[in-house]
Amino acid sequence: MDWHGPFIAVDWGTTNRRAWRIAADGTVEDSLSDSGGITSVPAEGFDAEAADIRARLGDLPMLLGGMIGSDRGWRNVPYVPCPADPQALAAGICWIDPRTGIVPGVCQRDAQAPEVMRGEEVQIIGGLASGPLRGDSLVCLPGTHAKWVQIDAGRIARFATWMTGEVFALLTRHSILAPLLEGEAAPGAGFAAGVAASADGDPLGHLFALRAGAVLGIPRSDPASYASGLLIGAEVRAASARFATRSGGTAPYLIGRPDLGVLYAAAIAQVHSAALPPGHIIGGETAFREGIRAIIRELA
Amino acid sequence: MDWHGPFIAVDWGTTNRRAWRIAADGTVEDSLSDSGGITSVPAEGFDAEAADIRARLGDLPMLLGGMIGSDRGWRNVPYVPCPADPQALAAGICWIDPRTGIVPGVCQRDAQAPEVMRGEEVQIIGGLASGPLRGDSLVCLPGTHAKWVQIDAGRIARFATWMTGEVFALLTRHSILAPLLEGEAAPGAGFAAGVAASADGDPLGHLFALRAGAVLGIPRSDPASYASGLLIGAEVRAASARFATRSGGTAPYLIGRPDLGVLYAAAIAQVHSAALPPGHIIGGETAFREGIRAIIRELA
Repeated sequence: MDWHGPFIAVDWGTTNRRAWRIAADGTVEDSLSDSGGITSVPAEGFDAEAADIRARLGDLPMLLGGMIGSDRGWRNVPYVPCPADPQALAAGICWIDPRTGIVPGVCQRDAQAPEVMRGEEVQIIGGLASGPLRGDSLVCLPGTHAKWVQIDAGRIARFATWMTGEVFALLTRHSILAPLLEGEAAPGAGFAAGVAASADGDPLGHLFALRAGAVLGIPRSDPASYASGLLIGAEVRAASARFATRSGGTAPYLIGRPDLGVLYAAAIAQVHSAALPPGHIIGGETAFREGIRAIIRELA
Repeated sequence: MDWHGPFIAVDWGTTNRRAWRIAADGTVEDSLSDSGGITSVPAEGFDAEAADIRARLGDLPMLLGGMIGSDRGWRNVPYVPCPADPQALAAGICWIDPRTGIVPGVCQRDAQAPEVMRGEEVQIIGGLASGPLRGDSLVCLPGTHAKWVQIDAGRIARFATWMTGEVFALLTRHSILAPLLEGEAAPGAGFAAGVAASADGDPLGHLFALRAGAVLGIPRSDPASYASGLLIGAEVRAASARFATRSGGTAPYLIGRPDLGVLYAAAIAQVHSAALPPGHIIGGETAFREGIRAIIRELA
């Protein structure tokens, strides 16, 4: 199989998917993005879906990453254990056929701190391969389940997951605070007040005050941003403490969605009293594409 | 109006209500308990509901407490500010008619830490009046929104709310962990492991490991109890720290539901390395009835 020419990279998640046709030099030639995540595809439907992606982007070799490799995806691809590098990920690819492969996720098989990721490993490899991410560093990947990943000597060495995004969504949709949390969280005074209040490491002890203040006629302005700041601030403090001895206190890198990235960048800057250095915020889509390219180089 | 004879006490909450016919000496002569909380009653339906309670328990003077005094209840009764005592609560009663009154809630009008309670103040007054609760102490009232209350010189001086119960319910019903969190949380090894893991004050950083462990075939036993221990343990640590200087380090009191009480008692014992002393666990229903009696004594 020729992996030296153009190819298709697919980031196939739980609720969404993105695919790109990429030239050998890394240029994006075409792309698609839709809500066809794995939960919208019946178990026997993935062959047809992949054929449809090729019909739209070109009849090319295709490498996929993300939840497509989970037990609810196309194949349940075994995780590669930490420490993991591009060679190990390439060796662990599940081949549907010689020109269609699914990149494995990474696991931490530690009974006291078990962890799994699918998709983030491709972004991390891409950040390392394309330059901004240093080989010994701490990386934060915000999301529904945010990952903090320790990189040692260019390998994914250790990581941990925070359910911050999911808990915030649950509070927004289903809790007694839901009517107060309408609107998007954004950086600013409200978010900063939440990050400040998270200093005691007790976000769940400050949330109800949003409702009490509203009931008493002394409402806090921008409550959605305050609640987001409370939860993200507590995560940044806890993750920074947990990984401090290994990261040597240097600023973490951020990879992911721009909307969440600006919130995390603001929280990290506030908690560490220093803005994130230039180059520490890495776009998640670019990182994913570069990660697939780096893994393809291992196939040559 | 004669408040020296038998009367009806009603604890009317959001989803449930309990009512008792009580003799002048405090003996419970009859009672009812059902799911007729305020959200099940239309705004104009409370007169008929109260008449129905009298039809079932007796045509007697009636004092009510709880969410029945909220903006979704029978009347929106203004809160009594901290510090609050039985005299202030009696003076703040909202009289529907001369023999039907709603006890006010208590508020903390602090822009940085606004707080409100409705119903817990009656239980606290009851705990103080009937003996087990000392006039200078820290009280925890577990629930959907758990309250920790500082009592100074027999008055409700200051308090704070943790959303622990609601967040646990959200995780159980709506989160990715829901399939793992079936079954009741109970004291034991799983709960104790959760309380121990909460020592770093970062419960949201340990929850996802429940799913990762299950995915990797190294599941934690009794995950519901572990998750409950994580959240309650974090609350007990944070509340103990927040109120430590005022409570002088003495063991807190617990008032409330027995099912939650045993979990909180176990977490407090583990965090403080000492079992709760005898008399520190106070039944919530008895405390409510004694609180209504104590407020009635102020009416004489």
